[in-house]
Amino acid sequence: MFYNIINKVKDESPLIHNITNYVTVNDCANTLLACGGSPIMSDDINEVEDITTICGGLNINIGTLNKNTIPSMLLAGKKANELGHPTILDPVGVGASQLRTKTANKLLDEINFSVIRGNVSEIKTLALGSGTTKGVDADIADCINDSTLEGTIKLAKNLSQETGSVIVITGAIDIVTDSLTTYIIKNGHPIMSKITGSGCMLTALIAAYITASPSNFLLSTVAAVCAMGLCGEIAFSRLSEKDGNSTFRNYLIDAIYNLDDTKLENDAKYELI
Amino acid sequence: MFYNIINKVKDESPLIHNITNYVTVNDCANTLLACGGSPIMSDDINEVEDITTICGGLNINIGTLNKNTIPSMLLAGKKANELGHPTILDPVGVGASQLRTKTANKLLDEINFSVIRGNVSEIKTLALGSGTTKGVDADIADCINDSTLEGTIKLAKNLSQETGSVIVITGAIDIVTDSLTTYIIKNGHPIMSKITGSGCMLTALIAAYITASPSNFLLSTVAAVCAMGLCGEIAFSRLSEKDGNSTFRNYLIDAIYNLDDTKLENDAKYELI
Amino acid sequence: MFYNIINKVKDESPLIHNITNYVTVNDCANTLLACGGSPIMSDDINEVEDITTICGGLNINIGTLNKNTIPSMLLAGKKANELGHPTILDPVGVGASQLRTKTANKLLDEINFSVIRGNVSEIKTLALGSGTTKGVDADIADCINDSTLEGTIKLAKNLSQETGSVIVITGAIDIVTDSLTTYIIKNGHPIMSKITGSGCMLTALIAAYITASPSNFLLSTVAAVCAMGLCGEIAFSRLSEKDGNSTFRNYLIDAIYNLDDTKLENDAKYELI
Repeated sequence: MFYNIINKVKDESPLIHNITNYVTVNDCANTLLACGGSPIMSDDINEVEDITTICGGLNINIGTLNKNTIPSMLLAGKKANELGHPTILDPVGVGASQLRTKTANKLLDEINFSVIRGNVSEIKTLALGSGTTKGVDADIADCINDSTLEGTIKLAKNLSQETGSVIVITGAIDIVTDSLTTYIIKNGHPIMSKITGSGCMLTALIAAYITASPSNFLLSTVAAVCAMGLCGEIAFSRLSEKDGNSTFRNYLIDAIYNLDDTKLENDAKYELI
Repeated sequence: MFYNIINKVKDESPLIHNITNYVTVNDCANTLLACGGSPIMSDDINEVEDITTICGGLNINIGTLNKNTIPSMLLAGKKANELGHPTILDPVGVGASQLRTKTANKLLDEINFSVIRGNVSEIKTLALGSGTTKGVDADIADCINDSTLEGTIKLAKNLSQETGSVIVITGAIDIVTDSLTTYIIKNGHPIMSKITGSGCMLTALIAAYITASPSNFLLSTVAAVCAMGLCGEIAFSRLSEKDGNSTFRNYLIDAIYNLDDTKLENDAKYELI
Repeated sequence: MFYNIINKVKDESPLIHNITNYVTVNDCANTLLACGGSPIMSDDINEVEDITTICGGLNINIGTLNKNTIPSMLLAGKKANELGHPTILDPVGVGASQLRTKTANKLLDEINFSVIRGNVSEIKTLALGSGTTKGVDADIADCINDSTLEGTIKLAKNLSQETGSVIVITGAIDIVTDSLTTYIIKNGHPIMSKITGSGCMLTALIAAYITASPSNFLLSTVAAVCAMGLCGEIAFSRLSEKDGNSTFRNYLIDAIYNLDDTKLENDAKYELI
């Protein structure tokens, strides 16, 4: 299912405009390079339209939003929409402050996003107007398991219907839906929550995949989510007893660098439900 | 002495609000995750009060301070004081510019910090109003050794008395004092000064420790300082001939990830003096 | 040729003021520490003159320029000129937006740079007022090979004559010229383009080398360019099958940390042409 998608990223090397946080920005840039894409980070109001124009896709991440970058996000998003570029939103920590909630809602009001990716607390906040966001990690009350899966899928479908975006909820089980069709993905490893930026890096990866394969955002997103989870498994399998989350982070990006179509095709664990 | 302290961080996973520099922010986030805490970085004036409110502790680091983040530091600090949250200041490079000195003094005037951590040049600048700060590293004229130890301890005690904060001076020998009780710590390795951020990472680690164990800031700080030094030793012991400071940085965070109570208890080198 | 240059960096530990981007800033800081230098990052208008004054050299990198940092770059650059400090410009992505092109031109108008380093697309934009800059990576139309080498050298010489700066163009073949004398350098490995920041890190490295050996900017720049390329070769040779660009980045900095005069002298591949 994924052959074409992963290879198109390598062949076309999509240039991605990232307005993102300063915490995980280096990892996002190296993730984009690892998968075959090309990153540019730019957030000044006086250049974001130019940068969006030369890029193929736009990644907006509100992880360290501020009064200067919020208008840049809005301007770049509108430009990307005007140009028909794939766009993705990572609403990091939405619900943790009024500013984040207000900003995320404004972004959703003014920009059409191809994809929105968050943890369950973040997506719940977007879908319901409230959640139990505890910082930037999903609240334990919000974790996805067999008993909460059905309700969480419904939430994602509703948000997808409302926004027209493919919705991705990541956690122990990942959900990807365009409201009509829903996939659940069981790749990944719990240690991924012990590094900063595994969510941001996935969002950047999806940006590259949907930009290289814009004809089916749902499938290219599923491919990226499987790829990241699988790379988490590969990275974990390389760890020795003394290694920890820092070496894991390096191996995760290394695994993205080495991932090929056959490996992804064979080891992706997705179900259409 | 430390059993309870290290395990409480893992059990309670304290959420730490960091207003910090963009140089070492990723390492600080991964350090907090490694020890069992949870990081959130946020510096916009319009959200820092909200973020401080949902967090358990506050870490202020002036490494790349600017006109936007300075008011945010002040506002967040006051909010944390109002809520009774543990707070820590890392006065990176104070003395290197008038802006840093003025800002650090203003922060000390308006906020009660549970802990202040710096190198000897930085603490000297805070204590005496002047120092020989050479950039962000301690000046060689300021290094701590057996002949300068007594004077340096006196300096730390004075600053502690003046501020009401636990003072930490890190260097070849580390000093932790609340003015009445003083510990010196001899864990660590010189290569720690060859990576950027070993100081910032320690400050973040202390933030997690004091937030999880707020009943005795002095002891929880000593535990964190021993832990970081010990992890430096562990990380150095893993280096092969071709490894350098970058691999050391990764192994340092890995060591924090793997550190447990028995290891810390057995290998901490602290003296009550 | 390089004995003195590499050892002077280790002996004198030049303090470098960096006004740089938030994407690769951590790697630049660790690169400066690896080679024996000492980094300080500072970009607020209210302190850059103080910081420049205590430093030995200034590194300006426009990778994530914004309305706050552009005036800081200009102010710091003028101060560095006034003090006679070595200065270097990395015009990241110039040509990708009007803001970058305008800013780079303004910096060239108002500041005398000892060295300017960019990829061929960036240098072409500076030299000709236009280029085919595709984001932050050199455009494929611009790559340096045997058939384009002569024209590219001419371009570099012209820009050097116009600016009075040593010009460095990095790519498959690197060019360093002061308009009268030109070196080409063939160290390096293609994987260097698969990490973010190999250009920024080289610029930081050059800053340290020219600050420690200011008497001959051309030679100290050639030494740094050879050193970075050679470290890329060393880092690549350490990679195992499962390693990728993230481990490569770590090994690259490690190699800088371990590089010595004999190794550099023996394995540098430069030609005077």
